[in-house]
Amino acid sequence: MPHLIAVDWGTSSLRGARLDRAGRVLEEKSAPLGILNVPNGDFAGVFNSLFSDWMKPAGSVCLISGMAGSRQGWVEAPYVACPAGPEELERHLHWIEPRIALVPGLSVEQGEVPDVMRGEEVQIFGAMRLAGVTEGLFVLPGTHSKWATVREGRVTGFRTYMTGEFYGLLGQHSILARTLDADAPLDEAMFLRGVTRAGEGKSLLHNAFGVRALALFDRLSPAQSASYLSGLLIGEELRTQELPAGGDVIVIGAPALTGRYALALAGTDTTVRTFGAEATWAGLRALQG
Amino acid sequence: MPHLIAVDWGTSSLRGARLDRAGRVLEEKSAPLGILNVPNGDFAGVFNSLFSDWMKPAGSVCLISGMAGSRQGWVEAPYVACPAGPEELERHLHWIEPRIALVPGLSVEQGEVPDVMRGEEVQIFGAMRLAGVTEGLFVLPGTHSKWATVREGRVTGFRTYMTGEFYGLLGQHSILARTLDADAPLDEAMFLRGVTRAGEGKSLLHNAFGVRALALFDRLSPAQSASYLSGLLIGEELRTQELPAGGDVIVIGAPALTGRYALALAGTDTTVRTFGAEATWAGLRALQG
Repeated sequence: MPHLIAVDWGTSSLRGARLDRAGRVLEEKSAPLGILNVPNGDFAGVFNSLFSDWMKPAGSVCLISGMAGSRQGWVEAPYVACPAGPEELERHLHWIEPRIALVPGLSVEQGEVPDVMRGEEVQIFGAMRLAGVTEGLFVLPGTHSKWATVREGRVTGFRTYMTGEFYGLLGQHSILARTLDADAPLDEAMFLRGVTRAGEGKSLLHNAFGVRALALFDRLSPAQSASYLSGLLIGEELRTQELPAGGDVIVIGAPALTGRYALALAGTDTTVRTFGAEATWAGLRALQG
Repeated sequence: MPHLIAVDWGTSSLRGARLDRAGRVLEEKSAPLGILNVPNGDFAGVFNSLFSDWMKPAGSVCLISGMAGSRQGWVEAPYVACPAGPEELERHLHWIEPRIALVPGLSVEQGEVPDVMRGEEVQIFGAMRLAGVTEGLFVLPGTHSKWATVREGRVTGFRTYMTGEFYGLLGQHSILARTLDADAPLDEAMFLRGVTRAGEGKSLLHNAFGVRALALFDRLSPAQSASYLSGLLIGEELRTQELPAGGDVIVIGAPALTGRYALALAGTDTTVRTFGAEATWAGLRALQG
């Protein structure tokens, strides 16, 4: 098996890792050169400036996941339809040079409305390997959170939630911004109060206004408002999930985010396991066959 | 009964009407001088420049509803707690000059979270008079839509929904803005498709991303996306209402908005009745005793 250069090229940033033949990470690097920040759209130039050294050894191969394979990226790698596992992705790797391939994202049709992911599928397959499972519910929090169901090693369905984007819009641009400190550290009790409130089934359109009303009556400080709003949004995600009773929920992402999901899920009959960047490297390696 | 000068002084604009002793509108005027646009906070100056002529006749009285009575307004008129009807409001009119009073808003406590309205209560009482009813479900669409329940002539409870604000945030500042024409005329079929989708009970956080996914696969044009998103949001409001089977839903507001609610409610077992600005004048007159 050749040396793998694993790259996660997203919208706002890019991360890469050089793995040895056993899959161990030898070196990592990152840059704020997401696909929206590539000068003159010169993807090859950015790639070479960062990774040409790593590509020198004969037999080195690079797999790139994430938005680099989107229409706005380096080259478009068409989505692969669910159900799909590492085998399907490997078969549809989009080779743009003899040793560089883009990993396609996944698409799914659910009730007349499609859904898509790019990059998260690799993290899911990596976490599957790291956790030693081939079934389960996977959560990838972020600007556009993904909840994915895996059966027999393949993603059978998933849904995207605009949770992080709603948090930014509401906390920075809505009427709530006037009485909310988005930079405050997490207040766990207030966060959980928001999760509970969301679980009561009222609409998010109404619950969000509650942040304003509570602040108006001095019952939420600006710091508390941020945690409460975060709880409302993550709780709204949880509200519509079918959680596996007594089963695992695997949460993949940065610790600051996965910690919030672990907190929100602590009151449910599930076991939460979390993974970080290592899931990406393990997932890209899984595509090497 | 003295001549009434009826004023609805909101966040972004101000409207006034001069009524005769029988309550007929003799003259109306409006200005883009909402409470956030009052130069140097000189509310008295703005008031006099617009209404001093109307106030000249002896016995003229002015009642002002809306955000002018908020903390950021002319003088704060504390909220009156629900249940409350015209009698309660009249008793708590906040006289700031011998012939000028601010109408207080309403507050309510529901499950640990308060809610508030300012101005809509007057429209509700006006519509009650115009419709000849003392019970029912009232809807006031807008930036912050209100759904209120009236029993025996008093508002017993209500909920605010940030529907209009979410529409603006999503249509102008989110990822959806890239493929959405917010100025397009309403596409009724797409609007109703959004209403139906919302009624299926998935989270708004997910349904909103569906607008993006449908556009990505060229299944929604920018004009259609705007109508579909509007349907998703208004449908999300409807999803959590207890509609009165066989009963009336009274919708108060500008025709462009009330028409959308009438459309969304057409498939339900309710009769929709709509009122416009006349509800405000009738409501302020109802506070004259």
